[in-house]
Amino acid sequence: MAEETGYSVAVLGATGAVGEQILRTLEMKDFPVRELKLLSSPRSAGKKITFRGQEYTVEEAKPESFDGVQIGLFSAGGSISKQLAPEAVKRGTIVIDNTSAYRMDEEVPLVVPEVNEEDVKDHKGIIANPNCSTIQMVAALEPVRRVYGLKKVIVSTYQAVSGAGYEAVDEMKEQSRNVLDGKSAEPEVLPVSGDEKHYQIAFNAIPQIDKFQDNGYTFEEMKMINETKKILHENDLPVAATCVRLPVETGHSESVYIEVEKDAPTAAGLRETIGSGGGITIQDDPSRQEYPMAVNSVGLPDVFVGRIRRDLDFENGYHFWVVSDNLMKGAAYNSVQIAESLIQYELIK
Amino acid sequence: MAEETGYSVAVLGATGAVGEQILRTLEMKDFPVRELKLLSSPRSAGKKITFRGQEYTVEEAKPESFDGVQIGLFSAGGSISKQLAPEAVKRGTIVIDNTSAYRMDEEVPLVVPEVNEEDVKDHKGIIANPNCSTIQMVAALEPVRRVYGLKKVIVSTYQAVSGAGYEAVDEMKEQSRNVLDGKSAEPEVLPVSGDEKHYQIAFNAIPQIDKFQDNGYTFEEMKMINETKKILHENDLPVAATCVRLPVETGHSESVYIEVEKDAPTAAGLRETIGSGGGITIQDDPSRQEYPMAVNSVGLPDVFVGRIRRDLDFENGYHFWVVSDNLMKGAAYNSVQIAESLIQYELIK
Repeated sequence: MAEETGYSVAVLGATGAVGEQILRTLEMKDFPVRELKLLSSPRSAGKKITFRGQEYTVEEAKPESFDGVQIGLFSAGGSISKQLAPEAVKRGTIVIDNTSAYRMDEEVPLVVPEVNEEDVKDHKGIIANPNCSTIQMVAALEPVRRVYGLKKVIVSTYQAVSGAGYEAVDEMKEQSRNVLDGKSAEPEVLPVSGDEKHYQIAFNAIPQIDKFQDNGYTFEEMKMINETKKILHENDLPVAATCVRLPVETGHSESVYIEVEKDAPTAAGLRETIGSGGGITIQDDPSRQEYPMAVNSVGLPDVFVGRIRRDLDFENGYHFWVVSDNLMKGAAYNSVQIAESLIQYELIK
Repeated sequence: MAEETGYSVAVLGATGAVGEQILRTLEMKDFPVRELKLLSSPRSAGKKITFRGQEYTVEEAKPESFDGVQIGLFSAGGSISKQLAPEAVKRGTIVIDNTSAYRMDEEVPLVVPEVNEEDVKDHKGIIANPNCSTIQMVAALEPVRRVYGLKKVIVSTYQAVSGAGYEAVDEMKEQSRNVLDGKSAEPEVLPVSGDEKHYQIAFNAIPQIDKFQDNGYTFEEMKMINETKKILHENDLPVAATCVRLPVETGHSESVYIEVEKDAPTAAGLRETIGSGGGITIQDDPSRQEYPMAVNSVGLPDVFVGRIRRDLDFENGYHFWVVSDNLMKGAAYNSVQIAESLIQYELIK
């Protein structure tokens, strides 16, 4: 009878960095999976993946793959989502899309459950999972917004290469070995695999993530700016972002400056407010050199916040440091949480 | 007769990361050195160093070492400067100090020649070289301040390990090899050699440089804040900083947000203004993925600026990215420039 409970789930992009974490999260959260399909591009089809002790063969994703599937967890790239999400929806699948394809679509809710869980109720078949760097920031911003209001947000990011997939991780490691051995780096993937030029990531910091837009901002920066406003339901909130890729395997860090609207709290007060947010873990004790760091975030679902301090000039200004595993809360974990929200609101037929 | 021209120069901390760059800069700039003394702690005394093809033996620094020395370039740590700078001054030496010992002393000019060269005239024996992360930022800020005025500065840094000396560089490399080989990192030096806890720098980002102050800011952050105001002669300018150590060998990067006072220019106008600053090289063409990066700055005296763009919400707000070799313009090169300013103003007896 256990076979009969739970849901029919498809994971599209099952062999990628995020897909792997989605499977790990479904296991970890004991998500009620009745039936599982692992889907990918033709290139990765045929690979074997173990889930809950059972071996699955990855299949090539086709429109028919979604027949009978209730929940589709998509992380195979924007163009594949554009192509297959409507096909899946046509077949009754609710798609939780981890690409940027639908995030700014007015018909598509963009959800971080700790922030705007109720937005899932407005779905028309597709729910978008925000960009990794956005998720961890809004998780920290939302409790502040609720209590004090937000007037301004400026963020500079310190992003890990796994956000660009396994090939970026491999490139960073190979380049690091080469540079340590006195050889040249020979970049081929980063900063953006589909862009014209490639630069050394080993022992460097690259101020470009995703392609440049006409306004001089990168698409990653525009994602952080626009998605933050949409998730927080604050269309007029000034948000600015500078996104930088680092030689870190996993774990995005962010230096965030905010100004609050009212009742400016002490740093301790703000710490307490941020700490009250869902999914937040405070690591903040300068006297003990305690603060969040990327290497300590790996594999964990938490959004870690520290270095919380008041601006020295503006009474309503604050600075803090936000770290999270970009593949977990930044992608896989949040996607599975959205699926849980759908179950909780009884939205899955 | 060539032996008789030029100045008697002592380099204190000659065997360190900055000391080595000072010697290289003196060579590169063809600085008029008549006599050279290489000084260090007892531990490094006896080492041999080649300067302009001639071998020198490093001597232990003592008060008497400065007899007859006209210019003393100090980079052996704050406590050694505190001890030996007054002794050197007593003997007629003008000390250019690259530690934090005297930077905020009201009697001591804090100089970036492109910004406040004339301040050297007020010296009473000691001139301080600012912190590396401050120098490159004020070099970019000064041309903007002159034309448009500054209302606010917020910086998040991406700092290289060589700012913490050779032992930090060695630690980063050894840790990187260990982590790549699946071994543990075993941190012993960073983030601050004299602090209690040590953390992995390889494939990580550490939001602590120098020790924490009681206000929750690190000393590095307070250096950037206070030194910027002093150098720019803008005591009331709001400056905020978050300083972060990265696994980069050499080259500090900075994500800078500013608000100007008046006549807010276009991004192109601001680019032209920043580019007019002394020692600045603009690398800023998003359409060609052109922007400054740490690995490209190594060994060069330039302050590189790119990613110059207007804030999307505040007409008078701008973001940009500043990169420079922290051992060169951030330390050695600026120190030698100060010595040149002293010569130009005929301040050396």
